[in-house]
Amino acid sequence: MQTLTDSTTQQLLKRFEQIRTQTETICAPLEPEDTVVQPMVDVSPPKWHMAHTTWFFEQFVLLPHLKGYKVFHPSYSFLFNSYYNSVGNRVQRAERSTLTRPPLRDVYTYRKHVNEHLKQLLQTANEATIVELMPVLELGLQHEQQHQELLITDIKYILSTNPLLPAYQKQQGTADNITAIPEATFLDIPGGVYTIGYQGNDFCFDNELGVHDVLLSDFQVMNRLVTNGEYLNFVQDGGYRDFRFWLDEGLALVRSTELKSPLYWMEQDGEWLHYTMQGLKKIDLNQPVTHISFYEAQAYANWAGKRLLTEFEWEAASQVYPPSNGNFQESGRLEPDAADSSTGMQQLYGDTWEWTYSAYHPYPGFSTAPGALGEYNGKFMINQMVLRGGSCATPQSHIRTTYRNFFHPDKRWQYTGIRLAQ
Amino acid sequence: MQTLTDSTTQQLLKRFEQIRTQTETICAPLEPEDTVVQPMVDVSPPKWHMAHTTWFFEQFVLLPHLKGYKVFHPSYSFLFNSYYNSVGNRVQRAERSTLTRPPLRDVYTYRKHVNEHLKQLLQTANEATIVELMPVLELGLQHEQQHQELLITDIKYILSTNPLLPAYQKQQGTADNITAIPEATFLDIPGGVYTIGYQGNDFCFDNELGVHDVLLSDFQVMNRLVTNGEYLNFVQDGGYRDFRFWLDEGLALVRSTELKSPLYWMEQDGEWLHYTMQGLKKIDLNQPVTHISFYEAQAYANWAGKRLLTEFEWEAASQVYPPSNGNFQESGRLEPDAADSSTGMQQLYGDTWEWTYSAYHPYPGFSTAPGALGEYNGKFMINQMVLRGGSCATPQSHIRTTYRNFFHPDKRWQYTGIRLAQ
Amino acid sequence: MQTLTDSTTQQLLKRFEQIRTQTETICAPLEPEDTVVQPMVDVSPPKWHMAHTTWFFEQFVLLPHLKGYKVFHPSYSFLFNSYYNSVGNRVQRAERSTLTRPPLRDVYTYRKHVNEHLKQLLQTANEATIVELMPVLELGLQHEQQHQELLITDIKYILSTNPLLPAYQKQQGTADNITAIPEATFLDIPGGVYTIGYQGNDFCFDNELGVHDVLLSDFQVMNRLVTNGEYLNFVQDGGYRDFRFWLDEGLALVRSTELKSPLYWMEQDGEWLHYTMQGLKKIDLNQPVTHISFYEAQAYANWAGKRLLTEFEWEAASQVYPPSNGNFQESGRLEPDAADSSTGMQQLYGDTWEWTYSAYHPYPGFSTAPGALGEYNGKFMINQMVLRGGSCATPQSHIRTTYRNFFHPDKRWQYTGIRLAQ
Amino acid sequence: MQTLTDSTTQQLLKRFEQIRTQTETICAPLEPEDTVVQPMVDVSPPKWHMAHTTWFFEQFVLLPHLKGYKVFHPSYSFLFNSYYNSVGNRVQRAERSTLTRPPLRDVYTYRKHVNEHLKQLLQTANEATIVELMPVLELGLQHEQQHQELLITDIKYILSTNPLLPAYQKQQGTADNITAIPEATFLDIPGGVYTIGYQGNDFCFDNELGVHDVLLSDFQVMNRLVTNGEYLNFVQDGGYRDFRFWLDEGLALVRSTELKSPLYWMEQDGEWLHYTMQGLKKIDLNQPVTHISFYEAQAYANWAGKRLLTEFEWEAASQVYPPSNGNFQESGRLEPDAADSSTGMQQLYGDTWEWTYSAYHPYPGFSTAPGALGEYNGKFMINQMVLRGGSCATPQSHIRTTYRNFFHPDKRWQYTGIRLAQ
Repeated sequence: MQTLTDSTTQQLLKRFEQIRTQTETICAPLEPEDTVVQPMVDVSPPKWHMAHTTWFFEQFVLLPHLKGYKVFHPSYSFLFNSYYNSVGNRVQRAERSTLTRPPLRDVYTYRKHVNEHLKQLLQTANEATIVELMPVLELGLQHEQQHQELLITDIKYILSTNPLLPAYQKQQGTADNITAIPEATFLDIPGGVYTIGYQGNDFCFDNELGVHDVLLSDFQVMNRLVTNGEYLNFVQDGGYRDFRFWLDEGLALVRSTELKSPLYWMEQDGEWLHYTMQGLKKIDLNQPVTHISFYEAQAYANWAGKRLLTEFEWEAASQVYPPSNGNFQESGRLEPDAADSSTGMQQLYGDTWEWTYSAYHPYPGFSTAPGALGEYNGKFMINQMVLRGGSCATPQSHIRTTYRNFFHPDKRWQYTGIRLAQ
Repeated sequence: MQTLTDSTTQQLLKRFEQIRTQTETICAPLEPEDTVVQPMVDVSPPKWHMAHTTWFFEQFVLLPHLKGYKVFHPSYSFLFNSYYNSVGNRVQRAERSTLTRPPLRDVYTYRKHVNEHLKQLLQTANEATIVELMPVLELGLQHEQQHQELLITDIKYILSTNPLLPAYQKQQGTADNITAIPEATFLDIPGGVYTIGYQGNDFCFDNELGVHDVLLSDFQVMNRLVTNGEYLNFVQDGGYRDFRFWLDEGLALVRSTELKSPLYWMEQDGEWLHYTMQGLKKIDLNQPVTHISFYEAQAYANWAGKRLLTEFEWEAASQVYPPSNGNFQESGRLEPDAADSSTGMQQLYGDTWEWTYSAYHPYPGFSTAPGALGEYNGKFMINQMVLRGGSCATPQSHIRTTYRNFFHPDKRWQYTGIRLAQ
Repeated sequence: MQTLTDSTTQQLLKRFEQIRTQTETICAPLEPEDTVVQPMVDVSPPKWHMAHTTWFFEQFVLLPHLKGYKVFHPSYSFLFNSYYNSVGNRVQRAERSTLTRPPLRDVYTYRKHVNEHLKQLLQTANEATIVELMPVLELGLQHEQQHQELLITDIKYILSTNPLLPAYQKQQGTADNITAIPEATFLDIPGGVYTIGYQGNDFCFDNELGVHDVLLSDFQVMNRLVTNGEYLNFVQDGGYRDFRFWLDEGLALVRSTELKSPLYWMEQDGEWLHYTMQGLKKIDLNQPVTHISFYEAQAYANWAGKRLLTEFEWEAASQVYPPSNGNFQESGRLEPDAADSSTGMQQLYGDTWEWTYSAYHPYPGFSTAPGALGEYNGKFMINQMVLRGGSCATPQSHIRTTYRNFFHPDKRWQYTGIRLAQ
Repeated sequence: MQTLTDSTTQQLLKRFEQIRTQTETICAPLEPEDTVVQPMVDVSPPKWHMAHTTWFFEQFVLLPHLKGYKVFHPSYSFLFNSYYNSVGNRVQRAERSTLTRPPLRDVYTYRKHVNEHLKQLLQTANEATIVELMPVLELGLQHEQQHQELLITDIKYILSTNPLLPAYQKQQGTADNITAIPEATFLDIPGGVYTIGYQGNDFCFDNELGVHDVLLSDFQVMNRLVTNGEYLNFVQDGGYRDFRFWLDEGLALVRSTELKSPLYWMEQDGEWLHYTMQGLKKIDLNQPVTHISFYEAQAYANWAGKRLLTEFEWEAASQVYPPSNGNFQESGRLEPDAADSSTGMQQLYGDTWEWTYSAYHPYPGFSTAPGALGEYNGKFMINQMVLRGGSCATPQSHIRTTYRNFFHPDKRWQYTGIRLAQ
């Protein structure tokens, strides 16, 4: 038995080390000043992300389970708790840029401190303890992966607000200008009863549970994501000025904030550029359009005479065309790739999250865990829309076809994109 | 054939007269000053409602169909168009209180002018024209009924903001203090496939179309609405201060606006009063709680260890327990009544709209009409929640079990209430 | 003695009647709906002005001095107190449009009620009481005259926000297009010691007291007000876009609110119109420019290579060139007139208030009265600029050369204008 | 002649070096993250101050005068121009925290680059050039001294918003608890004509020019600043809740922001503490009160039955009692000291700026320089109040008795205090 446990523990330690290190790798190119600012309330300072994910392990693993563990700093729970009312008071979300101290180097020390104690806990725990710790440890790792994606999108936003438009990284290896991508076609998905929700034995979030059947009619789904070139046609056709394509609240937003294009796009001397993780570049017409709100996705679909999928249709399509890989965080490119020239379904996984026309609501039978971790998902189930499939900033090991991401319909700083249905 | 048409026309004229007169009856107790103010952006001045419903007939019936018709006033389309971008520019919603002119008496003249021309049109039209006019005339009448409900809720809000708290009407005949109401019990609704949406031959809104089947599990639904007394228990149990019951955005609202009870409730010397259409009164513990947001409904359900229905469950329940009558606008009481002492399902119709945990989204196959009238419903299908069953301010002839009302989850000035499920 | 007192009382009664009636004459052309709205927080509903000036007599004269007097309505002090903290709680300024009740006709009854009791008090009081009442009665009358000016400017603003742009009155008799006005010249005012403040025996406000000497250098003052034509040159020369002419806060305001001209001006098809009390009209180039902020006055002066006067210079100029009459409220024209063709100093009185580059601060030795009436002026002595000379909306009997009017430098809805110095 | 110039140049170089070094000394205790945030719009990031003062020399000295000088970075003028419209577009004030790049170390390199080129310019210039450069060089040094004071107050504010309340420096040598300070007495200043404004031959700002005579009456001025202990009496007497003491706009601010004490004060367990540059400390009752708005100073004076001085009275008092030294930045204590036990006038210089009841307006004959440097002062002459005498954050070599500092009456983050008059 001992050997099995050892192996499980070793695997766990390896994953722990890999994921914790990856967070620091993401932050390596940053200046200390980059890690403290908060240019909009949705964005958190990178330093805060690094400390918060660490606090999660300290609060929910070390404190209850490592005998005699003393917190690294008595104020850190106040500073780095995100939204767990059960844990107590905390710095308000909009005030995270007040945390100029602790300085970045102290946060690295904090990470190291918690890492070491966590390893110590794992290496000294008996099998029963390991089994008991498994769920919350796994949640801590999944949680850190979620923050890795947020780190990438928040860093992109932070750097983009700087008038110097600094690049996060050098131009990556992949060719930018693929000369041929497949035509947009529509693949049949047969109607019928589909089972929705996670049915496996590995980790999933509580919002994927409440497995249930839904009845769907026949529909068709696009074989790839909508491209910059296709979206540019919408822009140039006056799509942002024509009220007929827009939900009323989307139109009000377009007008009050004078939107004319996706986030990070700008027109200069008649040419469309966009800010990327590699700096300011000319738009590649073959790459998927990204950084658009649900309103823009929906207006585009109306303009194209199509519609968006529901989250149930998306999950059904993924049962008919099971995705295996895609352009995820691991590729290091951090921008969506153009579809390749193959036929069939492409890009269900990776590149950009796909907005669905489904509200982020509980599945039938959804219930929250008792205590602080029950605040993880349920309390956000209002006014947000479901996105599916992961993006170029999502770790591949983090995604599933049943995975439900969610954002308010006006948000644009995530890698969000469009797949059409009819 | 002539006689048949005559009869149809006569019936139509009678309904037209009845509905148009009812609007003016609702406004009769008002002072001219009451009819022009707009204490919050959701509320429209009563004078505006009276003119806008008239403009609807002028714009969509008289102008296209009555030969030689000249508009009553060239500026009124600009003043009284609500949200039809297709028709052109208009006074912005938040600016409706600028319309001190035309004075109220001119609006009555406008109503009379349009009524007379509409009667003239109907009385002189041939059968084919009548048939062609039918859909838009019917829409105009249904539209005016919707504004009657808004008139009542807007008048209540306007009068409630006046420090004098004037009553809209004298105390009505019904006994306020029913001594016995039925215990809350839960009735079984069997799972299975239910057909959702309007399948009849009379009028319905486009948002009820896209008839489709849904698959439901077994569930149970409460036999009546939640009462003031039950809700007061929640209040007195600290429900507004306990984060565990609230959606996160609801909690933020409760805290930033210091909510402690439903709209119109106030505590004075340890006693709970509320503002009603009959002035300030002691709360009747047996009457249904009303003027609550979706957030409050949902928090109450969590506190009670139950949940809200989805709109599909509500519609299924109404198929199992078809409602026939209820306390509607026609009763003239304009406040919800206590349930009677009978067994079985009560109050599905009337008293208060029931918040469901369903987003107001299009049914499968939903499509909008071409032109201005296509703007009626579809463009609002985001960020709002569906309510079912009508209220004490809804005309009885306006309601159906498939009727989908919708408001943002923070709105409280409508007659909104709670039915629980489990 | 009795006869003298009689005569004083008779005069007082006559003035009281004249001023109270004039307020109602000003409101006569209004619809009830015009009297309740508040399109910006600076503006009060006309109905409120009518009731508030009445409350002033009730609160400060009748209640303390008329034995057995019962207030007209127990809530009116709460409703119609403006800013007297000493008197108690009140409807907040920004909430005045909630007062749809009492209706206009009740406010007229209130006025009549207070008028009659005040006459009764005066007719039955003995001489000693009359002498004692004199200061507060006089303050009540002066106060009502101040509100008459506010009524006129508030009515103008209210009607101007209505998309129909209704006229307050028919075109008045005076010729609009005087063909010749005098050239702008600058008249010498010798330097030296001037005594500032009110030294007479009639009424003045406390802010005119603290008579004191100031030392001035020689300066020159323009012989008339700046005209629309002269100001239009500034507009057409790009004055609103050239930062060099503006105070920094003025420039920020111009940019954030996209100001391009005085309030009520609009350009249509290359022609400049403005909204007046007689409706929309072409701008008369010879009339004084009005409805400008201090920022605009100051920017114009900079553009013209001149400067504004201080309030001390203005008062000194009025000692050298004592004004006698001008275009005041009594003319009934309610818009500024062009200067006539005579030489010498013109328009020191009437037409438009003249912005000075003096902050509204206490004179040396200024002190406030004890009690509520001490709140009349002193607590506003910050962030406001002094204006001098009265306007076409000021009653002639209300003005003095020592009179200090005051508004924040961004306000434009009063009849404000420009006189230059060098 | 050469030697004289040499000596002048040497002196200039020495001052240049001293002042430039002092700026860096002030910033030495900061973390990089401290130098980029902007917790309120009035505060600028320390990194920005360091770069902006450097840009001032580059823009106004090196570019026009050092032949062949190439700017350090082509974007820095856009990044680090503060408010000079004449120089061109720039990062908006509220957006200064977007400048995470250039990192702090680049700003130090920028400073060094400009320092070296400036020394080179001075060492190679002939006498005529030195004479020509003198005014702008001097302005650059005075400008940097102004920013040193802002650096100190901005750093204090930045650190105070951090929940950890980090200290800027260790406890300084001076005794905190002086046991005896002089009684508050009032010293006579005789009335008469006083000449106001700078009449010497050294540097002064343009706002001190327009030397002119003013006529003052006799008055009396307090012998020292108001202390924490005296102010605490006002607090504990309910001063913040009693409307009678407050200007109306001050009262509105107190109520809307729930002010109860000076900035940085907090009550804990019945004891008053305040945040200082040495961290959180118990309030010393003998030290001067500081970090109060003009509204608070004026309310305190009203409560005490006294008044504030005008700026002319202050300057007259400084002619009667010429100050020589005080507690300035050079002391390194960075908090106000208690008065010593000597008699006569104390603390006219240093410790805290003294609010006067004078608006910051131009003196008679004030004129601005042509070009960008003319924007230095004149465009801010509205809505601000004059402060006199310097503070513990002001460099001693920067102050004069004619020096006019100015802030809006609601500002509290500067070292502002109270001296009374009667």
